[in-house]
Amino acid sequence: MKIKYNLIHKDSNCNARYGKLETRRGTFETPMFMPVGTLANVKTLTPEELQEVNSGIILSNTYHLWLRPGTDVIEKAGGLHKFMNWDGPILTDSGGFQVFSLADKENISEEGVFFKSHLDGSDLFLTPEISIEVQNKLDSDIAMSFDECPPYPVSYEYMKKSVDRTLRWAKRGKDVHKNPNQALFGIVQGGEFEDLRKYSALETVKMDFDGYAVGGTSVGEPKDVMYKMIEYATPYLPENKVRYLMGVGEPIDIIEAVIRGIDILDCVLPTRLARHGSAFTKYGRINLRNAKYKEDFSPIDSNCDCYTCKNYTKAYLRHLFACKESLGGRLLSIHNIRFLIRLTEELREAIKNNRVLEYRDEFIRNYNSKKE
Amino acid sequence: MKIKYNLIHKDSNCNARYGKLETRRGTFETPMFMPVGTLANVKTLTPEELQEVNSGIILSNTYHLWLRPGTDVIEKAGGLHKFMNWDGPILTDSGGFQVFSLADKENISEEGVFFKSHLDGSDLFLTPEISIEVQNKLDSDIAMSFDECPPYPVSYEYMKKSVDRTLRWAKRGKDVHKNPNQALFGIVQGGEFEDLRKYSALETVKMDFDGYAVGGTSVGEPKDVMYKMIEYATPYLPENKVRYLMGVGEPIDIIEAVIRGIDILDCVLPTRLARHGSAFTKYGRINLRNAKYKEDFSPIDSNCDCYTCKNYTKAYLRHLFACKESLGGRLLSIHNIRFLIRLTEELREAIKNNRVLEYRDEFIRNYNSKKE
Repeated sequence: MKIKYNLIHKDSNCNARYGKLETRRGTFETPMFMPVGTLANVKTLTPEELQEVNSGIILSNTYHLWLRPGTDVIEKAGGLHKFMNWDGPILTDSGGFQVFSLADKENISEEGVFFKSHLDGSDLFLTPEISIEVQNKLDSDIAMSFDECPPYPVSYEYMKKSVDRTLRWAKRGKDVHKNPNQALFGIVQGGEFEDLRKYSALETVKMDFDGYAVGGTSVGEPKDVMYKMIEYATPYLPENKVRYLMGVGEPIDIIEAVIRGIDILDCVLPTRLARHGSAFTKYGRINLRNAKYKEDFSPIDSNCDCYTCKNYTKAYLRHLFACKESLGGRLLSIHNIRFLIRLTEELREAIKNNRVLEYRDEFIRNYNSKKE
Repeated sequence: MKIKYNLIHKDSNCNARYGKLETRRGTFETPMFMPVGTLANVKTLTPEELQEVNSGIILSNTYHLWLRPGTDVIEKAGGLHKFMNWDGPILTDSGGFQVFSLADKENISEEGVFFKSHLDGSDLFLTPEISIEVQNKLDSDIAMSFDECPPYPVSYEYMKKSVDRTLRWAKRGKDVHKNPNQALFGIVQGGEFEDLRKYSALETVKMDFDGYAVGGTSVGEPKDVMYKMIEYATPYLPENKVRYLMGVGEPIDIIEAVIRGIDILDCVLPTRLARHGSAFTKYGRINLRNAKYKEDFSPIDSNCDCYTCKNYTKAYLRHLFACKESLGGRLLSIHNIRFLIRLTEELREAIKNNRVLEYRDEFIRNYNSKKE
C-alpha cells in the first residue's frame, strides 16, 4: 500500500470533507495542516515536539535537500525519515516552486529548467526525471510531480502552453517513478483561468495519480482569486483521492480552502512568523516584541493546549525576543504550529456537524477583532 | 532552611568530596556541574531538557537580568523560577564578573563600580547593596556576595587592597541581605598569592556565610596557577559548607578542582561550544562542522545516554550546522551539558571508591588521544 484516502463525511452545506489518510507510516485525519521541514528539520523543533502538537505529516523540500546535504547522503542514511529521526509520514515537494523563483522565463525549456543555486550562484538544471529520482531516493511517503509554477499574473496564452508542458512533465515523472512505497501526486495548474483549471484537472486525473494538488497558488494573486483557483479545480478531482493545496497557511485561507474541498495544506508561515515574534491567536496575530507585554504574565492564549501556553507568559516570551534568545522562536513555533493544527481539528469537528460555514463566520468575526 | 550541605564521603587519597546539597527546591548530589542560564534561559533549552540531563541546579546572571527584563519584572512575575518555569534550585552570581570586564580600574571606588552598559553604553553604578537587593528580588536559592574580580596578573599591592575591599563589600552585602529563603555565599579572592588567599578565606569564613566560592579564576591565568588558587583557599574553608568554583567548565579543570575539594562549578563553555558545532567526547573535542562527518552515521558518542546521541547521527548534526539550523546548537547543547554532568556523576562514583586520582589519569589519557 502506498496511501489510501477514506472520505468519511462531507459537510452538507459545502464541499468540506472529513476523512482519513492511511500511509505506511501511520494514519491521520484530514483536513490536516502540514508543518514545513525545509532542510530535514522543522526549524528549531524536534520530531517529539511535532508529535506533541499532533502533526500527522510534515513536508520537506526536495530542492533544498538536493543541494544540502545532497541526495546521496540521505540515501546512504537510509532515507529522509531515518536521517532526521521522524517516523511519521513525509511529503516532499518537487523543487519546482523554489526553482521557478530562481529561474528566468527564457531558461525554461521543454527538457527542464536552468537556474542559479541560491547558495553559490552555480548553474543547475532540474528536470521532471531528476526531481522524481531525487524524491525516490529521499524515500518520502508522498512525492510531487515536477510542474511549472508561473507567477501571477501571466497571459492566457502563456498559461495554456505552461499547462500543457506541466502535463507532459507529469507524464515523464510518472514514467520514471520507481519507489514502490511512495505515492505520487499530480498537480493541477491553470492560473486564474477557469477553462484551463478544468482542462488541467481532467487531463491530470486521466493519468491516475495517488492524489492531487492544486498548484500555482500563493504566487502573488489576491485572496479571492486564490479561492477561485481552488473552486475551478476541485469539481474535477476524484472524491476518493486526497487533495492538497500547496503553500497556504493563513488561518482564514485554510478555512476557505477546506470549504472548497481541500484536505491537506502546508506553509512555512507558522514557523517563520514565530521566529519574528508573531503569534497566532483567536483574535488575530499579536507580536510578542511589543512593549505592552513587558509585564503581561498571562499566556498567549489561556485556552491553548500547547506546551508554550501551558508553561510560559507573554512577559517571558517578550523578554526572550528582546534578548534575541532562540528559545523564543522555538516556543512560539510550537504555539503557531499547534494553532494551525488545532484549527484543522476544529474544522474536522465542524464538518462532522455540517457547520463549517458557521465556523468560518465565527472564526473571522473573532480573528478580525484584533487585540493589537 | 536555606541550604544544608552534607559531606558523605571524602576520597582517601585526595581532598575530593562526595556530598548532598539540600535546598528548598530539592536535593542534589555533589560534585555537580551547573549549566548557565544567563538571560533566564539556558540558551536554546527548556527546563524539561535540563531535568533530562540531570541538572541539579542552574546558574543565572544578575547583571544581565538587572538590565533585561529588569528586576521589577521578575519580582512581579513571582521570582526568577516562576518567570522562566524552572522549579529546581538557582544560583545567581553577583554581577561582579561582568561588571569588572566593563569597568576601568579607576572607576572602582570604595562605594561601588561605575561602568558602561554592554547594551547601549549608558552609565551604570553597581554596589554590594544593589547586587544583593537585586538577587533578593530575583529570589534565587543561592546569592553571591559582590566581590572585586581583578584580572590576571595584578601586583601584590593591588591584590592586597582588593582583598580587603572585597571583605568590606561582603560585610555590606551580608548586612542588607533580607531574603529569608535565600542562602548567601562569600567569595575568596587573593589571586595567585598564597598568603592573600589564606587571609581572604579566613576572614570570609569569620563572617559565617552559607557557602563559599573560590573566585578570581578563569581571568587569564595559566591552568597550574588556577589549580594553586584553589589549593591555597580550600584548606581554610569549613568542611560542612559547600564550595563553589566560579566559571570553570573544561572537563580536565573540573576534575582537578574536584580533587582539590570543590563541590559545584559553572561555565558557559558547553552551550557556547555547542552553538559553534563543537562537542565534548571522551577522546577530546570534535567539531561537527568538519567535512569528515558528512557520511558518518554514528552518534557523537555511542556510550552517551543523552537524547542527541540516542537519536541523531554526526552526519545529521553536521548537516544542521552546515545549514545554520539552530536545532544543531540545541541538540549539541544537550549533549555537552550532559557530558559535563555525567563527568560529575562519574567523579561521585570515583570518590565513593577512593579512586578519583586514577579516574583523572584515565580521563586525561583518553581525552588527549583526540580523534581529530
